[in-house]
Amino acid sequence: MVDEVRVEVWRLVKDHRGRDVVLLRDGRQRSLPIWIGPYEAAAIWIRLDPQHSATLLRRPMTHDLCAAVIQRLGGRVERIVVDDVSNDTYYAKVHLAINGRTVTVDSRPSDAIALALRCDAPVWVSDAVMEAGNVVVEDDEPAAGGPADDAPDFPSEDEQA
Amino acid sequence: MVDEVRVEVWRLVKDHRGRDVVLLRDGRQRSLPIWIGPYEAAAIWIRLDPQHSATLLRRPMTHDLCAAVIQRLGGRVERIVVDDVSNDTYYAKVHLAINGRTVTVDSRPSDAIALALRCDAPVWVSDAVMEAGNVVVEDDEPAAGGPADDAPDFPSEDEQA
Repeated sequence: MVDEVRVEVWRLVKDHRGRDVVLLRDGRQRSLPIWIGPYEAAAIWIRLDPQHSATLLRRPMTHDLCAAVIQRLGGRVERIVVDDVSNDTYYAKVHLAINGRTVTVDSRPSDAIALALRCDAPVWVSDAVMEAGNVVVEDDEPAAGGPADDAPDFPSEDEQA
Repeated sequence: MVDEVRVEVWRLVKDHRGRDVVLLRDGRQRSLPIWIGPYEAAAIWIRLDPQHSATLLRRPMTHDLCAAVIQRLGGRVERIVVDDVSNDTYYAKVHLAINGRTVTVDSRPSDAIALALRCDAPVWVSDAVMEAGNVVVEDDEPAAGGPADDAPDFPSEDEQA
């Protein structure tokens, strides 16, 4: 059993280049920044803050469709886990309960998080990934600067080859 | 039983304002243009033309995740149907087979089409919608101009309220 920690989807921020970053935070105040795409950031943003529920969408977006499909097929999102990082890419799995068993599906972390927020499913991170990606973020100054211009690229989601 | 026609996902084009339009076409050469968002257009584009399979993605995009979820839950996309247009918005349903029965899920047409292309599922349009939205498109000159600047807005997908 791999050690995992439960995290909250804490904040969405922009790095110094205007790229979207989702910050996950555990109970020990360790934060994991994951660079994500703008569409996935929007899908997370609209579900992250209760005040955004005022921004009602009249039609289901893609992650809403995915959540509805799971529900209609009799499944349930048990949890999602960011469980690996390799070559600057984070990996996640969606754990689905169906007919008394659990199946997993490979996913980008952003899709998994956007789905979890729609299904009230908890978000977990493997402890090794948390240790590898952990950055210290002051509570009132959330990663606004991001990495310095000459810093190496941080691990992100791999949008395309 | 509502009359429905099978269509092919014929082409992706841009209108005169650079907006993405997916063209559905039936066996009688009637074409239905649906204005869609850029992200959904990309999700359709990458699966529409075999030559784009060279553009391999290393990680699953959102519609790939949705297709994988359906497969892992034991479901199958039977077909998708663009079955209504109201207040300049097109509506679609994804028909899913699970345990010998069919369930349907409300969807934007673009998401349904992107999903159908990933699941080798046929695309249908209700005859009334086809009649209402049908435009004549020359085979070698696909809607390049789009509606004139002073034309009323064509029915589209409703991205947000």
